[in-house]
Amino acid sequence: MAVNLPLPVASELFPVAGIELGFAEAGIRKQNRKDLLVMKLAPTATVAGVFTTNRFCAAPVQVCKAHLEGLNISDAPIRALVVNTGNANAGTGDAGLAAANATCVALAELLDCEPSQILPFSTGVILEPLPVDRLKAGLPAAIDNLRADNWYHAAEAIMTTDTQPKAASRRVEIEGKTISLTGISKGAGMIKPNMATMLGFVATDARVSQHVIEHLVKEAADRSFNCITIDGDTSTNDSFMLVATGASDLEVNEIGSPAYLALAQAIVELSQQLAQMIVRDGEGATKFITIAVEEGNSVEECRQVAYAIGHSPLVKTAFFASDPNLGRILAAVGYAGVSDLDVSKLNLYLDDVWVAKNGGRNPEYREEDGQRVMKQSEITIRVKLGRGEACATIWTCDLSHEYVSINADYRS
Amino acid sequence: MAVNLPLPVASELFPVAGIELGFAEAGIRKQNRKDLLVMKLAPTATVAGVFTTNRFCAAPVQVCKAHLEGLNISDAPIRALVVNTGNANAGTGDAGLAAANATCVALAELLDCEPSQILPFSTGVILEPLPVDRLKAGLPAAIDNLRADNWYHAAEAIMTTDTQPKAASRRVEIEGKTISLTGISKGAGMIKPNMATMLGFVATDARVSQHVIEHLVKEAADRSFNCITIDGDTSTNDSFMLVATGASDLEVNEIGSPAYLALAQAIVELSQQLAQMIVRDGEGATKFITIAVEEGNSVEECRQVAYAIGHSPLVKTAFFASDPNLGRILAAVGYAGVSDLDVSKLNLYLDDVWVAKNGGRNPEYREEDGQRVMKQSEITIRVKLGRGEACATIWTCDLSHEYVSINADYRS
Repeated sequence: MAVNLPLPVASELFPVAGIELGFAEAGIRKQNRKDLLVMKLAPTATVAGVFTTNRFCAAPVQVCKAHLEGLNISDAPIRALVVNTGNANAGTGDAGLAAANATCVALAELLDCEPSQILPFSTGVILEPLPVDRLKAGLPAAIDNLRADNWYHAAEAIMTTDTQPKAASRRVEIEGKTISLTGISKGAGMIKPNMATMLGFVATDARVSQHVIEHLVKEAADRSFNCITIDGDTSTNDSFMLVATGASDLEVNEIGSPAYLALAQAIVELSQQLAQMIVRDGEGATKFITIAVEEGNSVEECRQVAYAIGHSPLVKTAFFASDPNLGRILAAVGYAGVSDLDVSKLNLYLDDVWVAKNGGRNPEYREEDGQRVMKQSEITIRVKLGRGEACATIWTCDLSHEYVSINADYRS
Repeated sequence: MAVNLPLPVASELFPVAGIELGFAEAGIRKQNRKDLLVMKLAPTATVAGVFTTNRFCAAPVQVCKAHLEGLNISDAPIRALVVNTGNANAGTGDAGLAAANATCVALAELLDCEPSQILPFSTGVILEPLPVDRLKAGLPAAIDNLRADNWYHAAEAIMTTDTQPKAASRRVEIEGKTISLTGISKGAGMIKPNMATMLGFVATDARVSQHVIEHLVKEAADRSFNCITIDGDTSTNDSFMLVATGASDLEVNEIGSPAYLALAQAIVELSQQLAQMIVRDGEGATKFITIAVEEGNSVEECRQVAYAIGHSPLVKTAFFASDPNLGRILAAVGYAGVSDLDVSKLNLYLDDVWVAKNGGRNPEYREEDGQRVMKQSEITIRVKLGRGEACATIWTCDLSHEYVSINADYRS
C-alpha cells in the first residue's frame, strides 16, 4: 500500500556507462528470490559513501569504511559493490567480520582484483550468522548476467520488506555534455537514517575526483536520506553510495564550480526522489507527510522539532485515521527539547489551513477544514516557531495497522 | 486488555483521614460518565507536586504551579484539588488560563476559601476549549458526595482511555504509629513523563512539613512515574501530587531521618505500583516489559539506552508478536546516543536467557529459549553495557494493533 509510488519502468532507467549490474538468487534467507547484487565498476570510477552512526554498525559497514579509507594510501580503485539481502550481518561479532571479508575475497578472485577493491553491503535480520557459503556460491551467476541495463533487476535484488523496487534516473546537460544519473534504494522499516539510509546507490558517468565525490555524497545525503524517518529506528546497516564512473566527458574537480553546482543539484534531486520513495513505501504507510519547521533559531532545533512530530506515534496514528486531532502536534513540539520555546509565538498550519495561532487554537480554524486536509494522501505540516530564520524539512509517513502486522510477522 | 492488572477492590482502599473525595458527571465531553473529581483537604494538609516539562504545558498546570509557589508567601494552605477529564485545556492560550482560573474561583466560593487555595487539573483532548460552564455546573454535585471512602470512584472519575480505574493503598507502622497511604493514577497514552505522569495522586495522613513534602514528591516521581513510557509522548498535562493531611500522629520534618526514610519507602513503593498500573493498562498493551540497563557510566546514559529500547516501534512490535527478533534491541542500543559505546563489551539477557555475548550472538543461545521467554506476559530485558557501575530501570509495554485502533479512534 505504497503512497503515490508508481512502479519504475525498466526502459526509463538509463544505463550509466562504466557500471554493470548482475544479480542472483542465492537463497540467503528464502528461496526463489533475487537476494544478491553485484555492481561492477570501470577502473576510472570514483566512489564515496556515508554510513550509519549506529554503534552496532554492521560488519559490512565496517569493511566498507576500511576499504574506502584505504583509497587514500593506494592507487587501487574500488572495482565492485556486492549486496545481499535476507541477513544484515550485524550484531555478529568477529564471525560477521570474517564473513564480510570472505565475501570480498571471493568476489575479488572472480573479478581478478584485490579484496580491498570490493565494498560489501548486507540488509535483513540482525543477530543471525550470515550464510556466507550460499552467498559465495551465488556470485558466479551474478557475474554471468552483468549488464549495463539491469537497474530494474538491481532495485528488485536489494528489496526486503519493500513492496516494490525503487529506482530513478535522469539525463542532464552540463557544460554542453550530457551525463546520465541512475540510482536505486531500498528500505521500509528501521528507517531514521543518521548518515544515510539503509541502502541507496546513485551512479553517474561524470568524471569526479575523489575529493569532490566525498563532498558530494555528504551534501546529497544531508539533503535527502538524512531527511526521512519511518519509525525512528536508525539501522545498523544504513549506507548511501555515490559512484562516478568517469565514462563521460564531463569532469568535475572543484567544489563550488558551475559544473559542481549543476551536478550536485541533479544528484540531490535524484537522491531526494529515491529517499522519498522509501517513505512512500514505508511499512504500512497510507500517507506521505512533509514536516516543515520554520522560523527557528537553528537548523538543528528545526530538525529536532520536526523529528519529534515525525516520531510521535500519536501524531502518526491520527494521520492514519484522517482525524484532525492536531493538539498532538503541539504536544510533540512542546516536548521536542527546545527548552526556551515561547509557545505564544508558535503558528501551525496543515497545508493551507491555519490551525494554531500564537500558541492557541486559531479562532477562525474550523474542524471541517482540518478534516478536509487530513483525508488527503499527501499532507504538509508547517510549524512556525517565531524565533529566527532557520528552517528544516523532513518526510515521513503515518502509523497504521499494517505497520504492526508487518513488524509482528517480519521474520516468520 | 490490561496486563496482569486486577481491578482495585473498593474496600481495600483505606480512607486517609483529612481528605474527602467527591465526583460528578458534568458532561465535559460525553454524557453519563464520571468526569469531575474534587478532593477536599484538611487545613493541616501539605501538598507538593511535580509537573510536565512539555513547553505546551496546559493551563491548569500553569495555575497549579503558581498556586504552589504562592504557598511560600502566604499562610493559606491548599484546600482542594479539582480534576476534569474529557478536555486537557492545553494549547488553549489565554482563554484556557481564564477557564482554569474560573474553575478555581467557582470551587473556592463553594468551599469558602480563596481561589489560590485550589489546584486544578485537566486531562483529555488538546487544542479544544474547556467547557468551563459545564464544569462549574457539576461542582455542587461533587461536593454533595464528598466522602473519605470514595477512592474507587475517584479513580474512575479521572479515567480517559484507561480500561479500568487504578488505585492502590497500604498501611504502614512508622515509629509505632500507623499511617495510611492511598493513591490513584490514570493514563494509558501520551505517556513518557518527564517530571511525572499524566495524573497521579498519593495521599497520606502523616504530618509532613512543606519543605520535606517537596523533597518527597520529587524522590517518589523520579523512582516511579519518571521510569515509565508507553509511546514516548510526553503529555502537556502530566502531574503527580503528594498530599500529607497531617491527620495522624506521625510527624516528618527532617529529610533523611528514620521516619523520613520509612515514609519515603512506603510512598515510593505505592507510587511504583500506581505507575506500573499505567503501563499495564498502556493503550493496547499485551506485555509488561521491564528494561534494566546495568554497568553504565552514568544513570543518565543507562536511562538513555533503556528509553531507546522502550521507544523503538520495532522492538515493541516484536514483543507483541512474541517473536525473538532480538537484533532489534541491539540496534536500539546502538543508536541510543552513547557515542563511545564499545559494543564488544555488551551483553544482553532476556529474563534468564543470555542472548548476546560480547556484542555478538551468544554461541549457546538457542532460538527456542528466546521464544519461550517472549511468550510470557511479563519480560525483563537486561542490558549490561560493560562500562561502569551505574544502572537504571524503566517499565514499558508492547505495541499492538489495538494501540493503533485506540489512537486512530480516540476522538471519534
